[in-house]
Amino acid sequence: MTPPAVQLTIVGSIGIDTIETPAEKREEILGGSVSYACAAASFFTHTGMVGVVGSDFPGAFRETWKNMDIDLEGLQTVEGRTFRWSGVYEANMDHRRTLATELNVFERFSPELPESYREAPYLFLGNIHPALQLHVLEQVRDPKFILIDTMDLWINIDRPDLEKVVGKCHMLTLNESEAQLFTGEGSLAKAARSLLALGPQYVLIKKGGNGSMLFSQEEVFLLHAYPLEGFKDPTGAGDTFAGGLMGALAASGRTDKEAIRQAMVYGSIVASFGVEEFSLDRLVRLDRDQIEERVAKFKDMCRI
Amino acid sequence: MTPPAVQLTIVGSIGIDTIETPAEKREEILGGSVSYACAAASFFTHTGMVGVVGSDFPGAFRETWKNMDIDLEGLQTVEGRTFRWSGVYEANMDHRRTLATELNVFERFSPELPESYREAPYLFLGNIHPALQLHVLEQVRDPKFILIDTMDLWINIDRPDLEKVVGKCHMLTLNESEAQLFTGEGSLAKAARSLLALGPQYVLIKKGGNGSMLFSQEEVFLLHAYPLEGFKDPTGAGDTFAGGLMGALAASGRTDKEAIRQAMVYGSIVASFGVEEFSLDRLVRLDRDQIEERVAKFKDMCRI
Repeated sequence: MTPPAVQLTIVGSIGIDTIETPAEKREEILGGSVSYACAAASFFTHTGMVGVVGSDFPGAFRETWKNMDIDLEGLQTVEGRTFRWSGVYEANMDHRRTLATELNVFERFSPELPESYREAPYLFLGNIHPALQLHVLEQVRDPKFILIDTMDLWINIDRPDLEKVVGKCHMLTLNESEAQLFTGEGSLAKAARSLLALGPQYVLIKKGGNGSMLFSQEEVFLLHAYPLEGFKDPTGAGDTFAGGLMGALAASGRTDKEAIRQAMVYGSIVASFGVEEFSLDRLVRLDRDQIEERVAKFKDMCRI
Repeated sequence: MTPPAVQLTIVGSIGIDTIETPAEKREEILGGSVSYACAAASFFTHTGMVGVVGSDFPGAFRETWKNMDIDLEGLQTVEGRTFRWSGVYEANMDHRRTLATELNVFERFSPELPESYREAPYLFLGNIHPALQLHVLEQVRDPKFILIDTMDLWINIDRPDLEKVVGKCHMLTLNESEAQLFTGEGSLAKAARSLLALGPQYVLIKKGGNGSMLFSQEEVFLLHAYPLEGFKDPTGAGDTFAGGLMGALAASGRTDKEAIRQAMVYGSIVASFGVEEFSLDRLVRLDRDQIEERVAKFKDMCRI
């Protein structure tokens, strides 16, 4: 029996995180954009991971991914230490401060896609150096839909490459402050218009607990965040949202705007579960029924 | 011919404002919670204003209200200067700083409802001292629906009266930071639960450009703010929202949760017009067709 074909390829960082919140400190837990995104996508479609870990990477973390049926053929293991990140969240969890970043094996990461990933119709370029994102695009064979994420660092230090790669993607996602930094516009509607001019069909601006906004030339779609009574750790929420979105979109086989709206709802709901606990702790216990139940509850909250 | 009966009574402050934004400074313009709220409500229902102005109050401001068909029988004019407020908005318009407050005739304001307002089925108690809000409740005859607004000042200095009057109303509205201050809860869902315990059926938390959330014991309703490319002056946006909500609710003759959802949409859309210009400048040129057009556009943006 041949394994199912990878429908969605996700490229990004893999980290071992140490995170402190006002309530709790957790050391050396599984993190990184591609870990959160693949976990979220795995509820919907067969997903292939492209990333790098060091020789110290715990077998238990690898097992976590395997148990979620994530395809690990694109995972590189190289001699050395895995990327480490540590940060602390302030009282209201709105802001976080990075305490330490050790790139380690991630410093020389060059994403190489296994043959079986290159035909995948959906691609999510997680937040890595735009030159590496361009390198991924050279390897794929005309995907139906490419989502790209980025961060303030690349906006500040490599805008030319970033603009080049954004222009080759269907959707750009970034958060509110990054959209403002990228464009110099305070108004998100204006910022989106300026980002659409770079070439993508869609710009998805994330506002954390205040939801997200999807802009295209023709229309705007507004999406709330599911209101939680509390959450433990917002790390990776944006990656979980984007991964869930791409997983659900891949599962639909579509790329039209109605399918994107529905996929965003799924991404947002999976992210709402993700932040309830640290790392992938909540996602490993999540099932499709729980997702559907919350989606139905959420849609009722938004009905006008 | 007898004039139409007042369906909605609104009580609050009337001020002459001086407002500075990063782009512009406007001096001695018409402001105050009851002015914004009555203007918004006037698109939907016959609205009576209860407030106080001084002998210096410009006739042109009074004409503005008359031209909107606001009932002014409850407007008191007393010897002295009208309430003055001045404030400045910071660069991103998220925060404002009060430069000066002169209470003037507002200091001795005691809201007295004309006989014709006492039977009005809808009542909006704008943000004034909770003891005065209680005084209004002694004058009305069992309204179908009472909305109450408040502010951080009353939470800090007269919590007992505030809790008493909130318990007699159907809906409490406050902004995000006030809800957190009132309850000590960072999570808005938890804050709302604690506020519902005071007695109102609904708690409406306003989040400015991030929309609003309506909580009851049974459900949550999430509403976006209409995305604007720019706005000139957010002063009075919350009062405009609440006034429009109550006007639309009064026009429906209903108080059920579906009617409240629709009324919130109308309130929010009127507020989105209001902030496009200073004072009532945009609202005096607004008509029902423009409101309906934006409501339809907004509903399409929120459709999932």
